[in-house]
Amino acid sequence: MSVLKIIKIGGNIIDNDDALNIFLVAFSKLKGPKLLVHGGGKLATKLANQMGIEVKMTNGRRITDADTLDIITMVYAGKINKNIVAKLQALNCNSVGFSGADGNSIVSIKRPVKNVDFGFVGDVNKVNTKTMAVLLENKVTPVFCAITHDENGQLFNTNADTIASELAIGFANQFKTELFYCFEKNGVLQDMNNDNSIIENINTKTYQSLINEGVIADGMLPKLNNCFHAIDNQVSKVCIGKPEMLFNKNSIFTTIKK
Amino acid sequence: MSVLKIIKIGGNIIDNDDALNIFLVAFSKLKGPKLLVHGGGKLATKLANQMGIEVKMTNGRRITDADTLDIITMVYAGKINKNIVAKLQALNCNSVGFSGADGNSIVSIKRPVKNVDFGFVGDVNKVNTKTMAVLLENKVTPVFCAITHDENGQLFNTNADTIASELAIGFANQFKTELFYCFEKNGVLQDMNNDNSIIENINTKTYQSLINEGVIADGMLPKLNNCFHAIDNQVSKVCIGKPEMLFNKNSIFTTIKK
Repeated sequence: MSVLKIIKIGGNIIDNDDALNIFLVAFSKLKGPKLLVHGGGKLATKLANQMGIEVKMTNGRRITDADTLDIITMVYAGKINKNIVAKLQALNCNSVGFSGADGNSIVSIKRPVKNVDFGFVGDVNKVNTKTMAVLLENKVTPVFCAITHDENGQLFNTNADTIASELAIGFANQFKTELFYCFEKNGVLQDMNNDNSIIENINTKTYQSLINEGVIADGMLPKLNNCFHAIDNQVSKVCIGKPEMLFNKNSIFTTIKK
Repeated sequence: MSVLKIIKIGGNIIDNDDALNIFLVAFSKLKGPKLLVHGGGKLATKLANQMGIEVKMTNGRRITDADTLDIITMVYAGKINKNIVAKLQALNCNSVGFSGADGNSIVSIKRPVKNVDFGFVGDVNKVNTKTMAVLLENKVTPVFCAITHDENGQLFNTNADTIASELAIGFANQFKTELFYCFEKNGVLQDMNNDNSIIENINTKTYQSLINEGVIADGMLPKLNNCFHAIDNQVSKVCIGKPEMLFNKNSIFTTIKK
């Protein structure tokens, strides 16, 4: 089984032209089949402000109404995705942009309403790897934005970390899948103010302790839940850190273990 | 050689939800390999207005500055393209959205500055069918928006009629290509106020007479130039009319002949 590397980049890379270009040069040089997943960064909020559309939040979480879904579709699948694809082509990395609708790759269902109606937010229900696999066999790299669909014509906003883990799981019967979450820190940190306090390995047991101690909290919780979801479902390797972990053998980062 | 149908839809179909849905149902039922090309309609201008960005025109032609290119990329490759792909999936037509950057499919060069600098407008230089062909072999339908790139990371705004004709020419050595321009009229009209005055056949000779008589003018000129460019370059069939021409055997439309 050959290795498929699935790499997710977050807003801090997307929002910074230099960081994005450095990352894409490194990404384009990675050998073997690979797949890029990107979030949206601050551009969607900026566009909403320019258009005079109010960003609705509940407990720090965005509510995706119809206008917001349009903005996300325009920014993620349009501006960000096509610019990344064009930059990868310039680096001789043949790529094709994807949303979950393209190739019917990721089917999701509208998040059920409990206390909050998140609007057009989709929870992943099914990953169809077939169309992406055909491209990978032909050395074409899918570049995935954080949008899915419901097979009934409705697009959904879906968390990019979740998309990355679900793709890694979806491909695990065809490839040895390795999942890398790239962000602005060196990994999961013991002390969030000290970028050298990297926790190099986290397993299910130490994870629970780190939550209890309050070391892992807020935004890191859903990210790590995605990591454990992947490692518990046949994904071979799950790592969190700066993009350097992809190409610098001396870099230190966090690896998630069972 | 099997037939590849390349169908271009214009703004009047894209801007009208009912017309678009009717078209997509018909399109999804077409047998054999097919490819859809769409323009952008009025949504780009609407978004520019919402964002307070001035649309710059010279002699009725849009100047694509950096802001306008962003808008076009967001609207064409994002909102319109992904919604069409999602709707086609709902109709069991497996499709993948494309710009010229995706799969390095259409390479263009910035339109040379003569009297006017059109900005980020690209003239098609090269069509690479390889990635699209792999998808077509696997019964996946490419859905193309009117954006190209220069292989150096720059996206360009490119006329959708031109994209359709260049794709038809590019595929002509692999398929018998048929090109259909769908718009709001029944075809090229002798009297633009009478939708029944369809000119059923136009060839190089009658084309020149129709121009001289002033029957073909304004926006129809570049469209017909694209048609003749296609028919002169190994495209088997070129037709202009309402979407009905695709599925209603009794419909009357315009066919371009050498």
